[in-house]
Amino acid sequence: MNFDLTQIVEAIQAVDETLEPQIQTHLDDLTHPQGSLGRLEEIVMRCCKIQRTLKPQLGKKRILTFAGDHGVAAEGVSAYPAEVTPQMVLNMLAGGAAVNVLASHSGAENRVVDMGVNHDFGDCPGLIDRKVRLGTDNLCEGPAMSVAEAEQALLAGAQLAREAKKEGVALLGTGDMGIANTTPSAALFAALLDLSAEEVTGRGTGIDDQRLRHKTQVVTQALEANQSRLGSPIEVLAALGGFEIAGISGLCLGAASVGIPVVVDGFISSAAALVACRINPLVKDYLFFSHRSAEAGHGAFLKAFDSRAILDLDLRLGEGTGAALAMHVIDASIKLYNEMATFSGAGVTSNN
Amino acid sequence: MNFDLTQIVEAIQAVDETLEPQIQTHLDDLTHPQGSLGRLEEIVMRCCKIQRTLKPQLGKKRILTFAGDHGVAAEGVSAYPAEVTPQMVLNMLAGGAAVNVLASHSGAENRVVDMGVNHDFGDCPGLIDRKVRLGTDNLCEGPAMSVAEAEQALLAGAQLAREAKKEGVALLGTGDMGIANTTPSAALFAALLDLSAEEVTGRGTGIDDQRLRHKTQVVTQALEANQSRLGSPIEVLAALGGFEIAGISGLCLGAASVGIPVVVDGFISSAAALVACRINPLVKDYLFFSHRSAEAGHGAFLKAFDSRAILDLDLRLGEGTGAALAMHVIDASIKLYNEMATFSGAGVTSNN
Repeated sequence: MNFDLTQIVEAIQAVDETLEPQIQTHLDDLTHPQGSLGRLEEIVMRCCKIQRTLKPQLGKKRILTFAGDHGVAAEGVSAYPAEVTPQMVLNMLAGGAAVNVLASHSGAENRVVDMGVNHDFGDCPGLIDRKVRLGTDNLCEGPAMSVAEAEQALLAGAQLAREAKKEGVALLGTGDMGIANTTPSAALFAALLDLSAEEVTGRGTGIDDQRLRHKTQVVTQALEANQSRLGSPIEVLAALGGFEIAGISGLCLGAASVGIPVVVDGFISSAAALVACRINPLVKDYLFFSHRSAEAGHGAFLKAFDSRAILDLDLRLGEGTGAALAMHVIDASIKLYNEMATFSGAGVTSNN
Repeated sequence: MNFDLTQIVEAIQAVDETLEPQIQTHLDDLTHPQGSLGRLEEIVMRCCKIQRTLKPQLGKKRILTFAGDHGVAAEGVSAYPAEVTPQMVLNMLAGGAAVNVLASHSGAENRVVDMGVNHDFGDCPGLIDRKVRLGTDNLCEGPAMSVAEAEQALLAGAQLAREAKKEGVALLGTGDMGIANTTPSAALFAALLDLSAEEVTGRGTGIDDQRLRHKTQVVTQALEANQSRLGSPIEVLAALGGFEIAGISGLCLGAASVGIPVVVDGFISSAAALVACRINPLVKDYLFFSHRSAEAGHGAFLKAFDSRAILDLDLRLGEGTGAALAMHVIDASIKLYNEMATFSGAGVTSNN
């Protein structure tokens, strides 16, 4: 691993579990029946542990949408042509995509990162240029990228998290844009969770039965073509991933290294988050899975990774849309912890 | 039924289903794969039909928390003493309850309505006084209230919805406060959905196994003691309900009569909403069930009533907490519909 990336991965600390009894005491003193705020209590508990504090802070929220193209799009695995990737990047920069609306609605910034879109954007205001190359190679014929390229993309994502920390961001969200990127994501889930191609391959943006059979075959082929390369997590990422996926993995690593919780979007972001957790398992406690995607394989991932998503709204759009919505719930949990009255303070009879 | 209430119930119109094709055309033209916004598309579709428009409007949001006491509390069915009802009313008026924090977080007002709390609040700023009486009678010995009292409470709730309409409120939320009120709610579910006491009785604010068995017995007794009174929906409400429950039922009726969608909170509010739907089945299309409560019987209700809640966060607090959180999702769906770019407008290739 390159030197800077190694340093970031090694800087990640376990979240502070020692605070749990004190956090629980405060929660139980808030004017509500013990535990009746359900998962909101679990969420703020973990926010405290991540921030290493008994007084969790709200702060700036930022969703980073990583974009990249995929050689495997040539296999016809998507309902949309690859030209839609740069078109949607421009749509996001103009504020017209779903993620723009939802980020703004939840009070978050949205930033778009070109990790490897097959388009020359020139001097494009607002676009963060971390382009590794004009799209990956076709993973069903060999590795999507080299290990050096995977490390470059990981480092770029990690550095964006560390810059966010310096700029006062308290909550990061992930997002993706890349035509055909449910295919590499499915391949990553299969390789890293030992699931079958059938279990993790879904309809993406909306393909029919025939194309779904073909796509499942493409995932199987990708796993076979890269069998000899499926060693370390970074080697798996290089063989089967995408530049935007690697960027998201890097964001998770970087955020964990500076103690920022990450709200993971849907199917693609989960594949990227899984890679990050394989690189350093301590990352998992910094992650909130925002929603259960309607993409078929996402349920299999959540089960295999023993995780429960915050929302279940049948979204299957990506971009960071689920992350944006879940941020409202996370902020809610922190506000409840900080702002509710206590039994003694409010003169309410407790049964504690 | 009293004259004013009859007029409100009869004023309820079916939502405008004729708009569906045009709403769907607009949704499909937004820059996202068809249907990929999942339940957000269903939600805004229904908001349009309720508002009878192709251009749904955001507006003021208001959560009304109805409070009342229950004679059945004397049976020891709750983990808390009845004195907590007025204490929590005062806590809400002071802004210290969970619903205050969450309503504010979602940009909604919260108002508290005394429907029948066993306490003289005197001149209490902020409290809306619609007190019918100082708590219901014990429903396991006979009717909780008279039919005339039920109608009085229904009318009060309905009029609050109609006042909200005049004040520019575009989205109403329900909430409840009343120690022991999961017991009448369970009895209402059992009577109106033909479910057993076991299926609908849960731990409420947190009772142990022994008390749960007792509470289930109390629900059974209440159904037996009132068997001869379980005729019309209002008679069922009078026999088994509560003043705050009747107020919420009335709010649902009144909101439907003036075309305002209602975000129904959890277990207690769902029982009240069910009564409203039994009084006039057209009400159902005006309701959004905000969350699936952790209270055991709520899942049985949602299944029997063929409804899916927006959120599933293991909440079991009431007050309007779930309604407040779900309002953010409903607003999100309207903003997406109104603010996203279209394929043609943004120069994005469509596969429609």
